[in-house]
Amino acid sequence: MQRDRIKKVLAQGRAGSQHVVCGWVRTKRETKGPAFVVINDGSCQDNLQLVVEPDTAAAALLPRIGTGAALRASGALRPSQGKGQQWDFVVADLEVYGEADPAAYPLQKKGHTLEFLREIGHLRPRTNTFGAVLRVRNALALAVHEFFQGRGFVWAHTPILTGSDAEGAGQLFQVTTLDLLAVPRAADGGVDYERDFFGRRAYLTVSGQLEAEFLALALGDVYTFGPTFRAENSNTARHLSEFWMIEPEMAFADLRDDMTLAEDFVRHLCRTVVERCEPELAFLARQYAETALPVAEIARLADARFAHCTYTEAVAELERASGGGRRFEYPVAWGRDLQSEHERFLTDEVFHGPVIVTDYPRQIKAFYMRSNDDGRTVAAMDVLVPRIGEIIGGSQREERLDRLEQRMSELGIPCEGFQWYLDLRRFGSAPHCGFGLGFERVVQYLTGMQNIRDVIPCPRAPREIGI
Amino acid sequence: MQRDRIKKVLAQGRAGSQHVVCGWVRTKRETKGPAFVVINDGSCQDNLQLVVEPDTAAAALLPRIGTGAALRASGALRPSQGKGQQWDFVVADLEVYGEADPAAYPLQKKGHTLEFLREIGHLRPRTNTFGAVLRVRNALALAVHEFFQGRGFVWAHTPILTGSDAEGAGQLFQVTTLDLLAVPRAADGGVDYERDFFGRRAYLTVSGQLEAEFLALALGDVYTFGPTFRAENSNTARHLSEFWMIEPEMAFADLRDDMTLAEDFVRHLCRTVVERCEPELAFLARQYAETALPVAEIARLADARFAHCTYTEAVAELERASGGGRRFEYPVAWGRDLQSEHERFLTDEVFHGPVIVTDYPRQIKAFYMRSNDDGRTVAAMDVLVPRIGEIIGGSQREERLDRLEQRMSELGIPCEGFQWYLDLRRFGSAPHCGFGLGFERVVQYLTGMQNIRDVIPCPRAPREIGI
Repeated sequence: MQRDRIKKVLAQGRAGSQHVVCGWVRTKRETKGPAFVVINDGSCQDNLQLVVEPDTAAAALLPRIGTGAALRASGALRPSQGKGQQWDFVVADLEVYGEADPAAYPLQKKGHTLEFLREIGHLRPRTNTFGAVLRVRNALALAVHEFFQGRGFVWAHTPILTGSDAEGAGQLFQVTTLDLLAVPRAADGGVDYERDFFGRRAYLTVSGQLEAEFLALALGDVYTFGPTFRAENSNTARHLSEFWMIEPEMAFADLRDDMTLAEDFVRHLCRTVVERCEPELAFLARQYAETALPVAEIARLADARFAHCTYTEAVAELERASGGGRRFEYPVAWGRDLQSEHERFLTDEVFHGPVIVTDYPRQIKAFYMRSNDDGRTVAAMDVLVPRIGEIIGGSQREERLDRLEQRMSELGIPCEGFQWYLDLRRFGSAPHCGFGLGFERVVQYLTGMQNIRDVIPCPRAPREIGI
Repeated sequence: MQRDRIKKVLAQGRAGSQHVVCGWVRTKRETKGPAFVVINDGSCQDNLQLVVEPDTAAAALLPRIGTGAALRASGALRPSQGKGQQWDFVVADLEVYGEADPAAYPLQKKGHTLEFLREIGHLRPRTNTFGAVLRVRNALALAVHEFFQGRGFVWAHTPILTGSDAEGAGQLFQVTTLDLLAVPRAADGGVDYERDFFGRRAYLTVSGQLEAEFLALALGDVYTFGPTFRAENSNTARHLSEFWMIEPEMAFADLRDDMTLAEDFVRHLCRTVVERCEPELAFLARQYAETALPVAEIARLADARFAHCTYTEAVAELERASGGGRRFEYPVAWGRDLQSEHERFLTDEVFHGPVIVTDYPRQIKAFYMRSNDDGRTVAAMDVLVPRIGEIIGGSQREERLDRLEQRMSELGIPCEGFQWYLDLRRFGSAPHCGFGLGFERVVQYLTGMQNIRDVIPCPRAPREIGI
């Protein structure tokens, strides 16, 4: 008989239905009559309570069964007389796959801090919290594909290894096969990269956008969804050295299309978790009541209309507030980037919901963003959501060859290495736009996890490369 | 008016229906009457033929329109009188977004070799061949998620950066932020990794399997689908330094479950491309008739039953053939690994279809595979398909702590760094299994591309790190 997942047993089982289930023991309670062994198999938030009647072959195995043991049980469902669960599972036959010595197994019934659980990354997915987070993460990851594929976008596998230090978006990891104890020197005293694996210096990507552009300017609409890297030496609860990023790119589209896509995308992600992860979200909202978004608030976001305002209007709002006595840690002035506190002020106190800020000063934005006619701003947009601020950054790209070359020259970006990128403006150029969204930020936002290390199976950060 | 993709216009349009379309010019033909401008927007294999009537505003733009130019046209569908297409699109209004100087644009109407196209990787997605390959690739990528998600598997984002040189599966790329011109030395004369980003040596992953195991032993069923790296210094048409790999891992499952999953998976991929990519497959089969799989053969594979045989039986077959005069380049003997020629002999000449070979000698397989009771073989399986041989390699994992420790000690694998992996056998161990499939190999197989560089947007190989 095939095993059934507990999720399926609980959803489709009926009184007397026979199943084989497997899972890891969460708790065991022995009474004078039957013993109650609660197991979880990772398929859902709910556990299944096994009932082991006394004087059965299964009961003889009870001494080997403690928290963490792996079991296989065949038996049948019976409406539960106890509180807290609808069904009991009356065990006919039991097998212990693997025990877990209670003196050594780190995950006991009592709660553990998230900090402690980070030290046992290989076991923490067996907890309620990480089971919930990882299932929400999976539902969101699937929702990303469903959203874009449903709209005819092509998933573009842009490269991890790159020869370009492109955007200057933070520090880069270098990739090499050279022996670091015997780095070969070139005639000019520099490293002889001729002898490295790729015959030149190589890095880990910080963004797939530039490659996504050449794919969009051929296939129409594409999106990336893959690992991305930042070698910044800063340890915060919001940054990882390795994270997953989503970057759609659309040909024949302008900033307005970009805003519409971003808004629809955020709503779709919220709607999906509300529809598919209600038990997980409810658990997290209970367990982390102070930080987690209430499910009702996520549901509201799924139907929210996003406000729009320009950067210039946003700065005027902030200056007005500042003038009225509102204190900000960072000064507000046209030409300076908005800080998180400013963004949260806009979402939480001005617009009371998500807002898309557009048309930022060109000097604080990347070289590839399209110049507006005012000569001071670019066709950029940031999506800000309540509580955390920026969640998406995007722009229409500069599709005019002369403007792009001029901007690169102003910023001292050498054209060599970018000829292919300029080619996209030389040959069949077209308006196009896109945005980027850090996947872990969204998981963090929707699960209420305060530390980004708790929303990815194997977090990477400075001096952190555990399991 | 919103632009419609050409795919939608051709599928849903009717005589007289009005649309806005955009795309890149494939060909232009001027006659005494109307001009015919054929465009493609990447949404499908088919082009759309624009009809530009003489003496219109649109006709005045014709001198600016050559192969490669990007256009926007509004107009209406009309049944075509010409051969080769069902519809004409009669242009009412035309805009040229970007021209393409015919003296400079590398993609002219005449065909180009795949080798030449590799040199203009940023433009080759605009060709029929690469449009087809990338759409098939996308359909397969989506099919991967649909297959596993439909069965309740969780997409596991295992890390790219790893501190372990684990499997010894080929050479590793090292990742560092050290200045290679001033590598710090430790007291023992080695590199002082204390001063590197992670405080220790770091690599790019060669497999997510070990991490997938800890996730499966908590969530039940998981799969990885992400970039993977091999620093092998060999230039072949079948190897990339960066490729995408799929690695499912199932708890509470044995080798038989693994075989069933692999078989269903391969069939699902074949079925999906036949159902969703018929125009692309038909184009490739026409264009690369000598190497591409006929669509009918892919359809047969989608319904094929996979033969099963043990390694020992396979070797007996090969030895029998050898004894009967069949020549192999590599010798056949029990204990040696099967070569591609042997695998293809089994699929093409013995079983006349796909076959799963099981129970390989332990000495040619990885340390984590489960020992069979015969003491000589392990619970491994390889899926072989006609024409190319191995496409999937998998195994049941050794879940018994003592056996695993013994095997690691035999092979001289130090236990430090693997304690977490051994913990999975100490605490709630359970039978589990999984397999790995190189995504590009499958795309190559189903598109008929002879060189693996032609099935990924930005191929990476020794001395190759272009766009």
